[in-house]
Amino acid sequence: MLAPGDTIGILGGGQLGRMIALAAARLGLKSFILCPDKDSPAFQVSAGHICAAYDDFAALEAFARQVDVVTYEFENVPLATAEFLAARRPLAPGAKALATTQDRLAEKSFVRALGIETAPFAPVDDLASLEAAVAAIGLPAVLKTRRFGYDGKGQVIVRPGEDLTAAWHALGRQPAILEGFVRFEAEVSIVAARRADDAFAAYDVTRNVHREHILHTSTVPAGVSPETERAARSIACAISGALEYVGVFAVELFLVGRGAAERVLVNEIAPRVHNSGHWTQDGAATCQFEQHVRAIAGWPLGDPARLGPAQMTNLIGEDVHAWHKILAEPGARLHLYGKDEARAGRKMGHVNRLRDGEGC
Amino acid sequence: MLAPGDTIGILGGGQLGRMIALAAARLGLKSFILCPDKDSPAFQVSAGHICAAYDDFAALEAFARQVDVVTYEFENVPLATAEFLAARRPLAPGAKALATTQDRLAEKSFVRALGIETAPFAPVDDLASLEAAVAAIGLPAVLKTRRFGYDGKGQVIVRPGEDLTAAWHALGRQPAILEGFVRFEAEVSIVAARRADDAFAAYDVTRNVHREHILHTSTVPAGVSPETERAARSIACAISGALEYVGVFAVELFLVGRGAAERVLVNEIAPRVHNSGHWTQDGAATCQFEQHVRAIAGWPLGDPARLGPAQMTNLIGEDVHAWHKILAEPGARLHLYGKDEARAGRKMGHVNRLRDGEGC
Repeated sequence: MLAPGDTIGILGGGQLGRMIALAAARLGLKSFILCPDKDSPAFQVSAGHICAAYDDFAALEAFARQVDVVTYEFENVPLATAEFLAARRPLAPGAKALATTQDRLAEKSFVRALGIETAPFAPVDDLASLEAAVAAIGLPAVLKTRRFGYDGKGQVIVRPGEDLTAAWHALGRQPAILEGFVRFEAEVSIVAARRADDAFAAYDVTRNVHREHILHTSTVPAGVSPETERAARSIACAISGALEYVGVFAVELFLVGRGAAERVLVNEIAPRVHNSGHWTQDGAATCQFEQHVRAIAGWPLGDPARLGPAQMTNLIGEDVHAWHKILAEPGARLHLYGKDEARAGRKMGHVNRLRDGEGC
Repeated sequence: MLAPGDTIGILGGGQLGRMIALAAARLGLKSFILCPDKDSPAFQVSAGHICAAYDDFAALEAFARQVDVVTYEFENVPLATAEFLAARRPLAPGAKALATTQDRLAEKSFVRALGIETAPFAPVDDLASLEAAVAAIGLPAVLKTRRFGYDGKGQVIVRPGEDLTAAWHALGRQPAILEGFVRFEAEVSIVAARRADDAFAAYDVTRNVHREHILHTSTVPAGVSPETERAARSIACAISGALEYVGVFAVELFLVGRGAAERVLVNEIAPRVHNSGHWTQDGAATCQFEQHVRAIAGWPLGDPARLGPAQMTNLIGEDVHAWHKILAEPGARLHLYGKDEARAGRKMGHVNRLRDGEGC
């Protein structure tokens, strides 16, 4: 168990690492960041940092010596890096969560093995197995790389009548899966935390709207049935238990069907704090960043209760230029990430709006 | 006006500077600290720092070059330092606030000149003027140094029949004032913010309980009449206007009389964020640290509305060892300052408790 004054090592210096560091600071913990980007936003709010590649083992050795626990802000931490660090310091979440979630095929097979529904999927390793997958699943379907996809990168939609060879080449002829197209009513997610001793705390289900494959808004309450809310919690609890997970994570879900037929399918698991949980900073008794710190420190989990209706809106690229207007808006809480350049598609900040009086 | 990405320079690296830096980070601003203490808590959460004395002008020059505005966390910034920095960068609050509040005689004379009531006081420069002051004010009374007093340091109570020479020597024979003993019902304070354009926003009056001259708890609502609440706001508004104040400040008040006779007297002005405003971190729509950042950045002031009943309790010295218990307490929000050693009398952290359902 950590004590105040101890140091959390964070792999990755983006906004998620930055917000973990800020939450840790409030609880009297120091943060130490390792990130290859010299302009990392998290460097600005941490006690120290090393600017190095994730596979620079001398740097990892020095990093390990500075910290009491290691966590990360992104799921693509190389497994060799995770194992190197886990041999030196407690790593939370552990290597099992990384190994499972870094590979879409492993992830979906793992979820299905728990008896939890996913979109139909089949492995694709070459053109022949793509043809077999299409025969089994039908079209339209989505061809996705098994590894390193995010924000819509590494995927191609395959429509009826389209040339499979073209799709296979478009994806770069790499290990992939074909996923059946899910006609969902909404994309929702559940953010939750688990401790090593199996303590578990979930936030309310969040309804997510994407624009150009990037999260645009997250809204609570999500407008799902109490049964769906309970099902999402059970799914998150089962997944985190099976992964022996320690920390905060998100499960992205498809909401399908209506009324009595409403249910959720697992889309993917994010073994980290998650953009769809940012509303908790201003809309929950304990925010996801503090919750992550509590979990990896071995401290009691905080109360995840929602304080009222809330909506998070990402500020992508030039959206951030509205910062001054947002500052003047009653009930709006601005969060900026300290990034210099407002490039297109870049997450620059977000705003949480608390919708008091609109009922929940 | 500052823009996101700009840097706030903070003189002083204690918990107040640290919490200003954390609030600034959420708004996309960097912080740069100057403090002589190499273990400064604020260093852990800032983009950079200089460890130097406040009268090291070469260091101040380097500090000024790193920052876009200068603020401070303590009122005893040397005036020469304030003037040196103000010639190079905007200084907020300005030198006038420092000059007035660093000297108890100047401060009380300033308040009285605004037509605002204080305890009776008279200047004391030697034994003869002490005798004259006692004759005018009566005993018991409090003999206080004019400069550098805090947390009960630099003051001596003089009771009827006591030897005035002993009191004068006990205080170190330095410029002082004698203040009439105020039989107060309670100590209360008002924390407020003013911008350069005269925009003003006050938090609710807070009731403060001290132990051994150190703040123990701050509670809102303070249990004062609406008239007293309004009077405190008027006092804060008048004082900050006359000082051409920019930033957050506190006015410590004595609550005297009961019922229709209830009124407040000014005890002292703190030209900075204030311990009695820490409840705003979890109990107000905008916390005092964010409000200070907004004011000195030239940004719109945030909503100071109280969210519900709240109580702040300081964790002094070994109190901090209850951290783990506090983490497990529903509704308690722990704030620790990252200080290594829990020395007696040292402010190590605080806890905000939101008292939902107890009515306000």
